[in-house]
Amino acid sequence: MVVGLVPFSGGDPRALRKERTRPEKGGKDVVARAAIMVRDSIESSPEVGTEQVVGIGIGSPGPLNRESGLVLETPNMGWRDFPLRDLVHGATGLPATLDNDANCATYGEWWQGAGRDANTLVGLTLGTGIGGGLVIGGELYHGASDAAGEFGHMTIDTTGRKCKCGNYGCLEAYASGPNIAARALEGLEAGVESILPELVDGKTSEITAATVYEAVVLGDTFAEEVMKETAKVLGVGIANLVNALNPDAVVIAGGVTQAGDHLFEPLRKEVRRRAFRSAVDACRILPAALPETAGMIGAAGVFKKETFGFI
Amino acid sequence: MVVGLVPFSGGDPRALRKERTRPEKGGKDVVARAAIMVRDSIESSPEVGTEQVVGIGIGSPGPLNRESGLVLETPNMGWRDFPLRDLVHGATGLPATLDNDANCATYGEWWQGAGRDANTLVGLTLGTGIGGGLVIGGELYHGASDAAGEFGHMTIDTTGRKCKCGNYGCLEAYASGPNIAARALEGLEAGVESILPELVDGKTSEITAATVYEAVVLGDTFAEEVMKETAKVLGVGIANLVNALNPDAVVIAGGVTQAGDHLFEPLRKEVRRRAFRSAVDACRILPAALPETAGMIGAAGVFKKETFGFI
Repeated sequence: MVVGLVPFSGGDPRALRKERTRPEKGGKDVVARAAIMVRDSIESSPEVGTEQVVGIGIGSPGPLNRESGLVLETPNMGWRDFPLRDLVHGATGLPATLDNDANCATYGEWWQGAGRDANTLVGLTLGTGIGGGLVIGGELYHGASDAAGEFGHMTIDTTGRKCKCGNYGCLEAYASGPNIAARALEGLEAGVESILPELVDGKTSEITAATVYEAVVLGDTFAEEVMKETAKVLGVGIANLVNALNPDAVVIAGGVTQAGDHLFEPLRKEVRRRAFRSAVDACRILPAALPETAGMIGAAGVFKKETFGFI
Repeated sequence: MVVGLVPFSGGDPRALRKERTRPEKGGKDVVARAAIMVRDSIESSPEVGTEQVVGIGIGSPGPLNRESGLVLETPNMGWRDFPLRDLVHGATGLPATLDNDANCATYGEWWQGAGRDANTLVGLTLGTGIGGGLVIGGELYHGASDAAGEFGHMTIDTTGRKCKCGNYGCLEAYASGPNIAARALEGLEAGVESILPELVDGKTSEITAATVYEAVVLGDTFAEEVMKETAKVLGVGIANLVNALNPDAVVIAGGVTQAGDHLFEPLRKEVRRRAFRSAVDACRILPAALPETAGMIGAAGVFKKETFGFI
């Protein structure tokens, strides 16, 4: 959980608080600790009066219902129809809004970050899974049932790798953190030469996506191949989005962007190979500018937009 | 080319004129004949006074630039930076607007057809190629450079069938009319049993997608397989769009929809298998209601919307 004070007109957030979510303690415990973090944040900023805090924007994993403020289902947290928004309101006395965390991250990058001038912005967050968000005409786009932006489960290979969602060939089955690590491990098990095992003292089960970037930086050929494959697969998915939506910008967040040009060069090349020229020419593909705070800033932006009608 | 009079407030178009485009005669000839069709249409409707015709909406293959009224490039017509809108205006004396033909078809289905109540509507037109259009919040969505909606070149299988665009595994490489026919022919060449050759008097090179539907209706097992594969592939592409955009409706136009439940049942099943439940539950997947006239009605709708600001 990340909590902080976001200035009404934008700018750097203050008084950041960070804590592990610990979902196993149950939703009400999470809400109680979040409320303490909010109070701490405000009290540690004497220059900000309590009366100046207008409300709380919450970003949460979904699916959720924005109107009712319910988190409908979260495989990672074990919640079901959990009234997160109203519980936070009750625990803090502050009005609150609720939106999807990947939407908030995209909105934050649009409001304050790498997607600042974009009219249409596609956001991708690569982590344990792949989250997505979409800003169209300067507004978060939610779709018919708040479910838009699930780019991670786009099929790019009907008979490809099995995804944890049960299907085959989803973007996430290749390019999420755990799947980048899994693909590296599969190569090692097939006998490929690499410094990867050395980097984890031989405990290959401890290889993560971060280990792969580390090996890339050290010039490991196999790790470079894994990264190139990741870039290519992301390029295919982004080309599909560029062809469908013709956005001004695509912003990619998550640990994998640490790989810099090792990722972005082959990725942009694959997009150019697969998408229409006029759409590619119109679209910047960029790393996120606010990797730690985009979600929090965007959630505050959602509160502001929903409450005051402007941003 | 289809020309007709579309009532200002919607309803059935009148005085339809249809003619082969004959692009080989050049763009100016096409414009001259279109102008004659417009005059014919108006003169054959004495109940409609010339002064009641407020303007012309043009739908054309793209890519194009709506603001300048230029058709930038049309592989099938051989045009380049062709000032279609202004030439039609010059030849008829009527104000004109220009938009992509697949966009117009989608807008027509949204205004008067199967997508009438949809807030977000995805339109797919299956023909020689696969065209797409997108209505969001009741407005045609064009993207950053009028290139949005190219759903036909969505990669669904990175190592799949070669597409005429040069890439591999595009939706169009499986489900366009010529590719449905090509897949059937490949099966026959591999020795599959089917009544398809009989339906074309043994001239298998004359098999079209329509021949395949005909064989399906006659109960041919192989043709049914080809249709099922078509449905499955379209289901994958539509599931990707449902996950990304969470639309209220997807409307499919083109000859292939004649196959009715043979197409729509396995297609809906594949979408449900691959897309998120809440997004699938929110989305109707329907055949087009105006297969012959959606493009024309939508083009008129675009003129009305751009000129008067409402529809």
